[in-house]
Amino acid sequence: MQLTILGSGSAMPTPQRFQTSQLLELRNKQFLIDCGEGTQNRLIQNGIRTTRLNHIFISHLHGDHWFGLMGLISTLGMLGRTADIEIHAQPDLAKLLRPQIDYCCSDFPFSVRFHDFNPHKSAVIYDDRSLTVTTIPLKHRVPATGFLFEEKASERHLIRDMIDAYDIPICQLKEIKAGADFVTPDGQMVPNDRLTTPPTAPRRYAYISDTAYTERIIPYIYGVDCLYHEATFLTADAARAKATLHSTAAQAATIAHKAQVSRLVIGHYSARHRDTAPYADEARAIFPNTIVAADGTKIEI
Amino acid sequence: MQLTILGSGSAMPTPQRFQTSQLLELRNKQFLIDCGEGTQNRLIQNGIRTTRLNHIFISHLHGDHWFGLMGLISTLGMLGRTADIEIHAQPDLAKLLRPQIDYCCSDFPFSVRFHDFNPHKSAVIYDDRSLTVTTIPLKHRVPATGFLFEEKASERHLIRDMIDAYDIPICQLKEIKAGADFVTPDGQMVPNDRLTTPPTAPRRYAYISDTAYTERIIPYIYGVDCLYHEATFLTADAARAKATLHSTAAQAATIAHKAQVSRLVIGHYSARHRDTAPYADEARAIFPNTIVAADGTKIEI
Repeated sequence: MQLTILGSGSAMPTPQRFQTSQLLELRNKQFLIDCGEGTQNRLIQNGIRTTRLNHIFISHLHGDHWFGLMGLISTLGMLGRTADIEIHAQPDLAKLLRPQIDYCCSDFPFSVRFHDFNPHKSAVIYDDRSLTVTTIPLKHRVPATGFLFEEKASERHLIRDMIDAYDIPICQLKEIKAGADFVTPDGQMVPNDRLTTPPTAPRRYAYISDTAYTERIIPYIYGVDCLYHEATFLTADAARAKATLHSTAAQAATIAHKAQVSRLVIGHYSARHRDTAPYADEARAIFPNTIVAADGTKIEI
Repeated sequence: MQLTILGSGSAMPTPQRFQTSQLLELRNKQFLIDCGEGTQNRLIQNGIRTTRLNHIFISHLHGDHWFGLMGLISTLGMLGRTADIEIHAQPDLAKLLRPQIDYCCSDFPFSVRFHDFNPHKSAVIYDDRSLTVTTIPLKHRVPATGFLFEEKASERHLIRDMIDAYDIPICQLKEIKAGADFVTPDGQMVPNDRLTTPPTAPRRYAYISDTAYTERIIPYIYGVDCLYHEATFLTADAARAKATLHSTAAQAATIAHKAQVSRLVIGHYSARHRDTAPYADEARAIFPNTIVAADGTKIEI
């Protein structure tokens, strides 16, 4: 599971920071989370090909989280793409984008499909063989949603030498990977843990987009391997954070600490702070294992 | 008159090139010409403040020429702007953008106004004390328009010492700047050219957006101080240029040569060519005074 921060800024870009966008890659799939203006430029600048990108998740409808969609979709059209694009978002987004898609992309060999979700209620909005995505209602000036990306438990790993030694037929391997013991033709029982090693622990990544400090999210994100939490402001700007329903770096770190996550990533910095060192200091004082994202930061989860 | 190339690429961005956008500054005003995705980022990266930007001209409705509008308008809203934004474009643009503007910018203290023009007919679409803007119909896959920015003749410059020496009353200076002679109280006639120097020659900048080679534009751009002409392809790609109704560098240079312009700027390079040196070679072989624009190029006109 690899996370690439495409844009680490908030609504007002800076020379170094684009608006919010992240790419999550796992098991040969790509998921785009938010799509601020310039997302396609950051993908190109990071040398990322998007052939395995089919699903895009939009957290809320402030423009800095979706104004890059039309440009990205258009470029995918020019790249000869044929697979449909699935956009998961609040219902209003389809209304806002459909006229432009109809106008600009009518001759594309793929469709753009919108999958609406209710931002006020947590729900599983994506489910495939290896992953689910669950929405997490946030607390912002407009309805906003976080996303929990949760791997499904994978199979146990076969110990190839043991499989060969017992000459186990291929047709039984599926059951053994699922945990079954093996009985040899002469009736000897071989326990599963001599044939396999435990599955890789399923990984969980939580994306907490624009939000005021709210402990209501903790049950959803408890113990995740990696938590991204917006940190628009510093504690010195706490009044402004409260007024705009954003979080400070200290608040993001407090949530990470209370939710006992393994790692915290912060971003969405206000343009008034060019230097992110104060964000790092503030967050790490509460939660040491904090990554202070910049545009282009890559994180292995 | 200063031109800043914000984006020198064509529809497909590259790591170095954003989509089309240019800023023309003169006499304390700013005019934005096209607004591809990331225009606001390039403005910020070039350290350009947009307090004097009121008019935006959009050449045609391919997304790489206007997908940056919503982000730019939103950012202007956050910057506390109060002056209205005037967008000059084909009628469809208002239909495509109005729903998003209504949704995202309803609480802004300024309005976004659309001024429609007919892309098939040349017309003066902007006129102020010092400047006119005239549309130039082009030849592209969709209706497309170039723009001629034409300064009005300015007044003659007063020779301050002579004005003082003859003790000319302030109320007569306007006439003298317009070319009038002065008659002293004792009846002596002082010819205007002893009191003034000639006005600065009005400058003309022509922007030729996406187009196939067409000599129909020459009468509009004849003798301009600076011509921007798209040069998406090289002669080696001539078939592709023809099929997509774009121009080659050699064709842009041929137009510049036939129109006897002072200077040519080329851009809108295909993403298939990373290196612009072949564009330079091809254009300069026909029209030596060619500037091969990159993102961030500044040109004094």
